[in-house]
Amino acid sequence: MTPRARTVRPGADRAGMPVLAVVGATGAVGTVLLALLSERADVWGEIRLIASPHSAGRVRAVRGEDVRVHALNEEALKGVDVAVFAVPDAVAAQWVPVAAGQGAVVVDGSRVFRMDADVPLVVPELNAHAVGVRPRGIIASPGCTTLSMIVALGALHEEWGLEELVVSSYEAVSGVGRYGVDALRGQLAALTSADAAGTELGRHPGDIRRVIAEGRGHVVPVHPDDPGDPHTTPVALNVVPFTGEMEDGGWTSDELTVREETRKVLDLPELRVAATCVRVPVLTAHSVSVHARFASEVSVSRAHRALANAPGVVLCDDPAQGDFPTPADVAGTDPTWAGRVRRSLDDPCALDLFVCADNLRKGAALNMAQIAECIGA
Amino acid sequence: MTPRARTVRPGADRAGMPVLAVVGATGAVGTVLLALLSERADVWGEIRLIASPHSAGRVRAVRGEDVRVHALNEEALKGVDVAVFAVPDAVAAQWVPVAAGQGAVVVDGSRVFRMDADVPLVVPELNAHAVGVRPRGIIASPGCTTLSMIVALGALHEEWGLEELVVSSYEAVSGVGRYGVDALRGQLAALTSADAAGTELGRHPGDIRRVIAEGRGHVVPVHPDDPGDPHTTPVALNVVPFTGEMEDGGWTSDELTVREETRKVLDLPELRVAATCVRVPVLTAHSVSVHARFASEVSVSRAHRALANAPGVVLCDDPAQGDFPTPADVAGTDPTWAGRVRRSLDDPCALDLFVCADNLRKGAALNMAQIAECIGA
Repeated sequence: MTPRARTVRPGADRAGMPVLAVVGATGAVGTVLLALLSERADVWGEIRLIASPHSAGRVRAVRGEDVRVHALNEEALKGVDVAVFAVPDAVAAQWVPVAAGQGAVVVDGSRVFRMDADVPLVVPELNAHAVGVRPRGIIASPGCTTLSMIVALGALHEEWGLEELVVSSYEAVSGVGRYGVDALRGQLAALTSADAAGTELGRHPGDIRRVIAEGRGHVVPVHPDDPGDPHTTPVALNVVPFTGEMEDGGWTSDELTVREETRKVLDLPELRVAATCVRVPVLTAHSVSVHARFASEVSVSRAHRALANAPGVVLCDDPAQGDFPTPADVAGTDPTWAGRVRRSLDDPCALDLFVCADNLRKGAALNMAQIAECIGA
Repeated sequence: MTPRARTVRPGADRAGMPVLAVVGATGAVGTVLLALLSERADVWGEIRLIASPHSAGRVRAVRGEDVRVHALNEEALKGVDVAVFAVPDAVAAQWVPVAAGQGAVVVDGSRVFRMDADVPLVVPELNAHAVGVRPRGIIASPGCTTLSMIVALGALHEEWGLEELVVSSYEAVSGVGRYGVDALRGQLAALTSADAAGTELGRHPGDIRRVIAEGRGHVVPVHPDDPGDPHTTPVALNVVPFTGEMEDGGWTSDELTVREETRKVLDLPELRVAATCVRVPVLTAHSVSVHARFASEVSVSRAHRALANAPGVVLCDDPAQGDFPTPADVAGTDPTWAGRVRRSLDDPCALDLFVCADNLRKGAALNMAQIAECIGA
């Protein structure tokens, strides 16, 4: 993907253009958001950077200019037209209403407001129109797992009418922020130095836990908001079938979120959804294995056409030639990549496919930037 | 799992006890098989080790004794009562009929004979009785993906009658043998040394491919029989949604195999199965995310009871306490570990669960050893 033409105008006269605040500007998602704002069409007046008090005073580059980071407080939110929040749930719960109360339209990436009936949940490729109906002045952006697959699913739903989804995810550690990335790197360093020293990893149960405990590796937290409560299961050379928090019936918050968000974005309140969310030792880009059942008979060729023509989707499906989406190829790109499209051998109405998207771009920062641009437009 | 009491009797009088041949004794599965034969009840007379000519003359320990490896030829197969083949498909196609023709009962781990109507496909916990009906003198052992989940599925099928399966796998690199393990280790060493040198992995698309191409890492072959035809997609810090060979309709050989084998072992020729097979950067132990629909209404408590009571299954399902199966914990153990059991929120007849098993033990060598013991019994 080539970035869009950059239309930076240092020192340009931006009088009359809307003021954008980026709240959480120094976090993993905020950092990607600043990069995106520098690449995309220059539709904003001031871009004000806001973060927690301990990040205040840092300087970050956006649109080719160095900008100082403000501490999050009422003063910092004054005069803002659009505020994009890329912060933990607890911070969003406290500060999003403050920003909205002061007149900003808020684009919030947290879970706090997504299921609020008065807050639209928006994926611009699918329901940009919903941006206009925002009684609370808040627009929510879905979670990274939903966002990694839903643009592709929306294109197929348009063809045949989606009735049921069974999905299993392969989620990158950056889904829990910088801490997840640092933890995986530390674990891998500990494991590979032990490997070089002759330990036969994987032969003896407990090796991986032991090496990580002894080395400089740290475990990956389950939940992005609470790096102080680390998950005790290593993710390096492992997969961890538990992300988020426990909810009723053995489901995790992340799995329920995929179900609720997919229903709301596609406006299918009765959609049957079974999701299993799994963390894998990948730095960036989430993957999802999708089994989708539709209201009518499907075909691979029509699915290929629908995916190839869908805005925001790249079809990548010639496995014999090595063409299928993988996180390594998708990280750093904007679209959702779809491949491995197969019609079920036992159900003419069901398709299986594999999708990948950068969890920090389409899975978070890009979708929020797109929503913000819809408001301005 | 504590290994069973070892009953090695060096120099014991084994006259009259059946002669076992291990063909492929020096490979990844063969090595685990020798370890298992040393742990398990000592029911064999001679244990003859056989491998490709270039491994002949090597010495391997089994039952506490050093045993010299023979080259695979007709002479080596003479006088054998039971021959366990852990070899590539092409070798099995040529030599399994030779061994059977010379009077051995063959336990074959390759794909070659699994779908032959005159060859039983056996998982002793589920269909040990099928061992007795072997018109060709051959008994097949399923592939590692099927074996990683099917004992747990069999227990649930017994409860409610299985009607449909949607599964996504998380498969270890040792599924393609030693070469896969060496390749992942090499890739990780290349990536972590680049990381230590300051490369910001995951920020720039193409980094992972580039570092591996420049470093001493090698790619993982798609197919265990052909390490000379390496897969061009890296598996370190990545997931690869393609294993085996391409077949019709976009399905891979491994995905079709899961469907065919599950139907045959469970004696459910009409079972609906949709499988997606994915390689992950794990050394040993396959995981499978399972969505299973049954003929009648399910409950988590009954599923827990059925799994806890099933021979060969360990229930590990208290996620709030960190109890769920992961490859790091399961590698090196015998059973299938099952957890994350949930009843579908939208279908009272469907369960979701996550299972792990050591792909070299229950997924290959252990199942073959169990079959061989059924023949001897």
